Amino acid sequence: MSYTTTDGHGLFQSVELERQIRRLHSAVGNAVVDDKHVVFAAGSIQLINALMHALSPDADAASPPARVVATAPYYPTYRTQTKMFDGREYRWGGTTALWGNASRNSTDGFIEFVTSPNNPDAQLYKPVLGGSAAVIVDHAYYWPHFTHIPAPADEDVMMFTMSKPSGHAGSRFGWALIRDQDVAKRANKYVQDSIMGASRDTQLRMLGIVKVMLANLHGEEDIFAFGHGVMRTRWRRLNAVVSRSRRISLQKMAPAYCTYFKRIRDPSPAYAWVKCEREEDEDCHDAMLKAKINTRPGVLNEASSRYTRISLLKSDDDFEALMERVTDLVNAERYDAPGFSSM
Amino acid sequence: MSYTTTDGHGLFQSVELERQIRRLHSAVGNAVVDDKHVVFAAGSIQLINALMHALSPDADAASPPARVVATAPYYPTYRTQTKMFDGREYRWGGTTALWGNASRNSTDGFIEFVTSPNNPDAQLYKPVLGGSAAVIVDHAYYWPHFTHIPAPADEDVMMFTMSKPSGHAGSRFGWALIRDQDVAKRANKYVQDSIMGASRDTQLRMLGIVKVMLANLHGEEDIFAFGHGVMRTRWRRLNAVVSRSRRISLQKMAPAYCTYFKRIRDPSPAYAWVKCEREEDEDCHDAMLKAKINTRPGVLNEASSRYTRISLLKSDDDFEALMERVTDLVNAERYDAPGFSSM
Repeated sequence: MSYTTTDGHGLFQSVELERQIRRLHSAVGNAVVDDKHVVFAAGSIQLINALMHALSPDADAASPPARVVATAPYYPTYRTQTKMFDGREYRWGGTTALWGNASRNSTDGFIEFVTSPNNPDAQLYKPVLGGSAAVIVDHAYYWPHFTHIPAPADEDVMMFTMSKPSGHAGSRFGWALIRDQDVAKRANKYVQDSIMGASRDTQLRMLGIVKVMLANLHGEEDIFAFGHGVMRTRWRRLNAVVSRSRRISLQKMAPAYCTYFKRIRDPSPAYAWVKCEREEDEDCHDAMLKAKINTRPGVLNEASSRYTRISLLKSDDDFEALMERVTDLVNAERYDAPGFSSM
Repeated sequence: MSYTTTDGHGLFQSVELERQIRRLHSAVGNAVVDDKHVVFAAGSIQLINALMHALSPDADAASPPARVVATAPYYPTYRTQTKMFDGREYRWGGTTALWGNASRNSTDGFIEFVTSPNNPDAQLYKPVLGGSAAVIVDHAYYWPHFTHIPAPADEDVMMFTMSKPSGHAGSRFGWALIRDQDVAKRANKYVQDSIMGASRDTQLRMLGIVKVMLANLHGEEDIFAFGHGVMRTRWRRLNAVVSRSRRISLQKMAPAYCTYFKRIRDPSPAYAWVKCEREEDEDCHDAMLKAKINTRPGVLNEASSRYTRISLLKSDDDFEALMERVTDLVNAERYDAPGFSSM
């Protein structure tokens, strides 16, 4: 198996896989692809630095380094990866809250990461800086099993990954949709120079998976209908228990019209964004850990430590174990109330 | 397929694949593995930056950036990748010739890349800086079909790739053998943070390939005996033609004892390093191109433009086409000689 792929231009991308990915977006209606270039990578994780590189000023340009920002709570890898690569062409700039007046001044030289639906709180967000800031929109979860699709996404620079629609996280395959040809070329060059393209074995496997997904859309084996069914039930069950609690609460999510299912659908987020309401539960992650519930602390997202993230992406067995522990935690509240001695 | 692998420590590495790779090195005798940590990556290309990162001073340390150097002619990706990532913790420092007195002074803060056998000239090289310089030895071609194996390699930081022993270049899988645990941890962390580990599909495929290679060592289907046979014949045929030429010459390579084959073996390099001998052929790459011979210009390796690299890693058909063109070029010399008018 040589370096060569079917693109014939040294892009290291299978043209057939690109074609099927474009078909999938069009059929699902979650992204406008016709005026976009497609750039493959080893997971959307790799695209974070590839796109920062592609959107930053040239190393030999006189411009100052780009400022990379995101609105809290945000996916922490934007920060950790920016700091690890520590390129001279950009710098981590913190949360957008620090640049509140940026839109009134110049937003030139800013790169804003937006995750929509957001990891950790599952909300659909828009960029906040505006003006001339470059925006990278991470649509990892913008598929109809995790969110309603109000309209096809059409931002200049978008990230997608196979980890979330089909669950093939270990395959490490992601792609960007990019409007500007030069930005796309720089991003592809980054993937070429850093790993010489996404694994061809993986590209071949992804091709099979995308084709199966496509062949079954709106049919009995529709992966999105299946996934929505599972995730909606999990969210509903978790909500039912937590609604009895005064100790913890979840983000609010409302049913909404989905252009893919062509009906109002119930929410089905990948993550529960838990808030600890009691004064003494200042470290919500820690409070959950005491109840044997594994979460990802909100401080990693530059949110308050009163928040923590529960992943609902797990096996059925693991979800049942989670439900038992959350139920125990909530049931224990009556005994914790004043007038009861602690157990 | 989840993120998880069998290592159980979030390293994203298959323990069985690691075990088989260690077995392969021990059986081939080309590397000492017992006191080394193994770090997987998306091709050895990715290890270039992973290892520079792992060997550079911490970003928040007061130390100046590491200087990354190599001896010409060297594999150009060390330079292009260092410049592309443009990390604050290191800088491309040029060829070792610029630092000739470094060994007399301090070599602290240097990172020297050594490719052995070298790409482009196929020679076995050692580091030249010495002292306290960190050394990354790229052993991509240190397998018995490309070179005799005088002894198992035992440097502190070594790079290997599946692209060269089995030819699975498109699979994008490489690994480092690293003596120091902290350096290995930093390199693995880099691969985690940048791509969340090498594709698990690819790891699974590599496992099958390594097992087949191992099962056939010294047998009838020995991949190294097969590869040596093919490459030796190609080198012999190319030499036979070029030996008649006064216009071009090749690097000198001698038969040598190989611990894998347990005999003196003929040379079988992956690349021919061509020198144009005529005064007017100052641009050897260009001179070859006029004869329809594709080469990689020596200037990319920071060598003189009088040198250029012919790859001998190609299909049989492509090699035959190459031989025809080289033969035509050499045969044409009689007509070019003084006394003959040019055609």
